[in-house]
Amino acid sequence: MSRLKEAMGAVAAEINAALDGYIPRSQDSDGRLFDAMRYSTLAGGKRLRPFLVLQSAALFDVPPDWVMPCAAAIEMIHTYSLVHDDLPAMDNDDLRRGLPTCHKKFDDATAILAGDTLLTLAFELVTAPDGHPDAAVRAELTHQLAAAAGGGGMAGGQMMDLAAEDSTLDLADVTRLQRRKTGALFHFSCTAGAILAKRGGAERAALGRYAEAIGLAFQIADDLLDVEGSEAELGKAVQKDAAAGKATFVDLLGLEGARSRAAQLVDDAVAALEPFGGKADLLSDVARYIVARKN
Amino acid sequence: MSRLKEAMGAVAAEINAALDGYIPRSQDSDGRLFDAMRYSTLAGGKRLRPFLVLQSAALFDVPPDWVMPCAAAIEMIHTYSLVHDDLPAMDNDDLRRGLPTCHKKFDDATAILAGDTLLTLAFELVTAPDGHPDAAVRAELTHQLAAAAGGGGMAGGQMMDLAAEDSTLDLADVTRLQRRKTGALFHFSCTAGAILAKRGGAERAALGRYAEAIGLAFQIADDLLDVEGSEAELGKAVQKDAAAGKATFVDLLGLEGARSRAAQLVDDAVAALEPFGGKADLLSDVARYIVARKN
Repeated sequence: MSRLKEAMGAVAAEINAALDGYIPRSQDSDGRLFDAMRYSTLAGGKRLRPFLVLQSAALFDVPPDWVMPCAAAIEMIHTYSLVHDDLPAMDNDDLRRGLPTCHKKFDDATAILAGDTLLTLAFELVTAPDGHPDAAVRAELTHQLAAAAGGGGMAGGQMMDLAAEDSTLDLADVTRLQRRKTGALFHFSCTAGAILAKRGGAERAALGRYAEAIGLAFQIADDLLDVEGSEAELGKAVQKDAAAGKATFVDLLGLEGARSRAAQLVDDAVAALEPFGGKADLLSDVARYIVARKN
Repeated sequence: MSRLKEAMGAVAAEINAALDGYIPRSQDSDGRLFDAMRYSTLAGGKRLRPFLVLQSAALFDVPPDWVMPCAAAIEMIHTYSLVHDDLPAMDNDDLRRGLPTCHKKFDDATAILAGDTLLTLAFELVTAPDGHPDAAVRAELTHQLAAAAGGGGMAGGQMMDLAAEDSTLDLADVTRLQRRKTGALFHFSCTAGAILAKRGGAERAALGRYAEAIGLAFQIADDLLDVEGSEAELGKAVQKDAAAGKATFVDLLGLEGARSRAAQLVDDAVAALEPFGGKADLLSDVARYIVARKN
């Protein structure tokens, strides 16, 4: 796994530098807004989604300069979702990546605006003419990114999650919820490479199957960590789902059942990558890492 | 002015129908999200920004089908900004367009998510392949729309506005703030026609000057209405700025000074339209209407 660790570390450094450059600094008396955006975005994190964008594009030898705006944009959208989800009106979390959440460090109004502005900046970035040279690719990427983040994807999944506090979900419900809440951004990240390379058909579909498998595996692993992990390792509160009475994959499948389902999904993910041969080795490593990680 | 009233009424009906079609209905247990988006977006309103998009495009005979997604998107972004600005953490307003604000009708979490999702849907819409047939135009429109709505535009202006509660602003500060908070979306709306028609240079610049003038006139008129209007006419709370200790154009210029500045801006706006001749008559009417309106 050290091959993956090294590659992820290198990408994280590149992404951090790119994000630092893309997020402006204060322009006026609005300094607090940009401080909050920078605080939450540059606080670290595994940069898993940008890694998937870059690796999926590398399968088709897309020049990294054409890919970086999209890789940074997906991380901005992921960060916006965390900033808003952590708000008192939503999940009311005080700790994120081992640091005070955005609204604890600043205030609720600033956190709302910082999330809004990160979301908006992501779209500004992907459509910028200095990214991919083909405007049709930029428009298609933006369209798919918005669909993944919006009502049919992540935001709709978050609404389902909030509604889940008042209801009893079965395995099909929880799977559907997670496919939207966390799966949609994974799906975009993994298929972005094919869009950037103007490949459709079988290759895009194979990346889509890979994404489906790792997205679900990621959530099952998260639920396992929520039971087995510690707050110190995760840098955020644990066992919140149980406290909120929300059904998790561990509740529905049991500990052993959840572990074996996750292992099966890793096999599915690796199998989906077969057409790409050795070029997809790091993506196979990602699938294995997702269920083996400790945070 | 009845020529304008008739035209705005016809456009409002078209836009309402388009918005109704563009905003999906419930897909699952996320129904509350779409109900909230529909509640706030379809609650009425003058549809001034879409009207500007459609009229600016009509100057260049752009087919309405190519324009409608962009016209609906600007209204979604305007609505998202109202939904978030009304939240308790921001301006804490209970009434909007004569109805309970989104978070009063639903709850804070739903209002945050509904705003997020409207913003995201706007970008999904403008980049959709069934809008303008040229992907380069769709990408450019999205890029400019994101710039107008983001940190350098509307969202940054809202942060300046929140920061203004703790400081004393002079005329230059308030002008700069409003140019971003309300001016940026007007600027986008008026120049969108030139982008949709692939016109640059003098024509786009003329529309930009028109937009600058009506944007500022709109805000001065708002400040005048805040002093002179009634809650019943406006459908929202009045004299909130004074209560919050925020400087307005009326404070800084006096009642007469504000009225005469607004009148001068209307003249500037009409003058900027000269190159377009009689085709721009409705846009000239809009400039006059903006300062004469009662809500």
